[in-house]
Amino acid sequence: MSTTVAALSTPEAGAGFEPTEIERRDLRDNDVRIAIAYAGICHTDIHQARDEWGGGIFPMTPGHEILGTVEEVGSAVTSHAVGDVVGVGCFVDSCLECEPCRDGEEQFCTQGVVQTYSDKGYDGEVTRGGYSRQVVVRDHFVVSIPDGVDHAGTTPLLCAGITTYAPLRRHDVGAGTRVGVIGMGGLGHVAVKIAAAMGAEVSVLSRTAAKQEDGLSFGATAYHATEDESVFTDLAGSFDLLVNTVGAAVDLDAYLGLLDRGGSMINLGAPSDSLQASAFSLLTYRRRMEGSMVGGLAETQEMLDFCAEHGITATVEVIDGTQVDEYFDRIVDGDVRYRAVIDASTLG
Amino acid sequence: MSTTVAALSTPEAGAGFEPTEIERRDLRDNDVRIAIAYAGICHTDIHQARDEWGGGIFPMTPGHEILGTVEEVGSAVTSHAVGDVVGVGCFVDSCLECEPCRDGEEQFCTQGVVQTYSDKGYDGEVTRGGYSRQVVVRDHFVVSIPDGVDHAGTTPLLCAGITTYAPLRRHDVGAGTRVGVIGMGGLGHVAVKIAAAMGAEVSVLSRTAAKQEDGLSFGATAYHATEDESVFTDLAGSFDLLVNTVGAAVDLDAYLGLLDRGGSMINLGAPSDSLQASAFSLLTYRRRMEGSMVGGLAETQEMLDFCAEHGITATVEVIDGTQVDEYFDRIVDGDVRYRAVIDASTLG
Repeated sequence: MSTTVAALSTPEAGAGFEPTEIERRDLRDNDVRIAIAYAGICHTDIHQARDEWGGGIFPMTPGHEILGTVEEVGSAVTSHAVGDVVGVGCFVDSCLECEPCRDGEEQFCTQGVVQTYSDKGYDGEVTRGGYSRQVVVRDHFVVSIPDGVDHAGTTPLLCAGITTYAPLRRHDVGAGTRVGVIGMGGLGHVAVKIAAAMGAEVSVLSRTAAKQEDGLSFGATAYHATEDESVFTDLAGSFDLLVNTVGAAVDLDAYLGLLDRGGSMINLGAPSDSLQASAFSLLTYRRRMEGSMVGGLAETQEMLDFCAEHGITATVEVIDGTQVDEYFDRIVDGDVRYRAVIDASTLG
Repeated sequence: MSTTVAALSTPEAGAGFEPTEIERRDLRDNDVRIAIAYAGICHTDIHQARDEWGGGIFPMTPGHEILGTVEEVGSAVTSHAVGDVVGVGCFVDSCLECEPCRDGEEQFCTQGVVQTYSDKGYDGEVTRGGYSRQVVVRDHFVVSIPDGVDHAGTTPLLCAGITTYAPLRRHDVGAGTRVGVIGMGGLGHVAVKIAAAMGAEVSVLSRTAAKQEDGLSFGATAYHATEDESVFTDLAGSFDLLVNTVGAAVDLDAYLGLLDRGGSMINLGAPSDSLQASAFSLLTYRRRMEGSMVGGLAETQEMLDFCAEHGITATVEVIDGTQVDEYFDRIVDGDVRYRAVIDASTLG
């Protein structure tokens, strides 16, 4: 017997959301039932709900930034207790036995990680995400939300936080590291805050000057509007690390030219067009271009603790379930500052 | 007063070589005059002599793999003496004061490194390369050839050796590192030998099986003909490092799929087409793509010493000056095993 809970679902690609009911499984021994307080809207949700990457499973209930309170735990659960405030991110199961899993990079599980929604679990059931009142998740994939943090603002960290934290940490960002954040949207503004808290010298590289005041208030020491192309000559060779948070294709050669010797550009977005760069852009100064995809559970917990310690939350607009379609469009238009979070209590 | 020496020059892009005379400057205090024994033909020479990258200075005397004997030294030269066997690689001057120069990466000199040929020196004079009887080079840019090595086979190491050694060393290649070498031509065959000597598990990824016996004799433990596309599924995720030595564009997505978590593809070639890869190829397993461009003088000397210690030379065909045009075509056709070296005594 499963539990019926209120949710938002889109019946087919791009159809818009409707209030529906979905089923949550009965608790297994190692499951946690979470009453959802907030669900963040990630740009990925838009790609998926519109099936822009293909392979979406419809009807679809998106949402992989989930924060709520534990309502019930399975008999074998020791890591979480009823009443705890917890979070769930981009995936809800993996084998936990392969080398990536053992290394704490469950996202690269060789048996196949189970995405939080629009995927099939190892039991064959379709996964449904956080745009709902409740979710049941295997304990290993549930993280603890530190005491005292703002819950709505913390919700997007479950994806946007770990996605930016992991590569910054992997590159040992600290005092003196010259970090450029390309794009200051949902991901970018969190990248600015985290890199600044790590001690880096952070510059925002945004198309226009519109977000300059925000960027500096988030901890950036410099802000450059890239619609002024002189930026690319003035700043040539002046960054150790570029964090490219733009979902669409950008002029990679122009940005690679901003990297100093041995510098790296981290690509977090997944434009449908190929990445294109001249071989010379990499040969010169032996530059690197790399991808990064969220992070494992232990590192997600580390990130949450780091953000709590440094007072970092995403800057969010809290919205009702009825506003999701409108906010999808506004996010695509770059018109949300900086992340939208659904108040799950408004979902039926 | 300068010295007139016999050389091969091409009067204009793609025109073919003619025996000519060129001038070598009188010795400055810190100059070394070298009687050239051998000059290697690098694929770059072909790009340059045919002006495929643009900006070539004609008439052009190529050659940036130069080995010979010191004939005369300037009054301030202490590092080399008359009679020493020495080498010159891809560049012949830099500021020696900027950060890259101080770090031993003269190739990235912020004042502009002076290429061995088809460039202008700080004195405004056009540089002319190794396809000649003699060259005059600033002492810092002259390396020592270890005793007892084969001179013809060592000559290509001045470019092909350092180009492959530097990224292998930078990635700490050693026992157990799974290295795939893409393409087994002039660069690739040296990469195989050096990586194997470093203790790596080396696989050759060559289009056909034609060079299998050679690849294994150079130290590879596996050889895969990539015209059989099953290679890309069978070997998915099985390399730590890929060294892409192919000058033309390859299917980067296919090769990136061969990298394990955190693995890197080093691009050494400079195809005129852009590098193109799906963002997902990098996101998955947080893979990296990077460029590498020769190496500095100290590391070039280190590479020569390493190769001497491990008995590594390039596998070469020694040719006469009259054969250069023919060998340019043969190199483009992939028909030289594995590097051509001009016997400079045949040049006029």
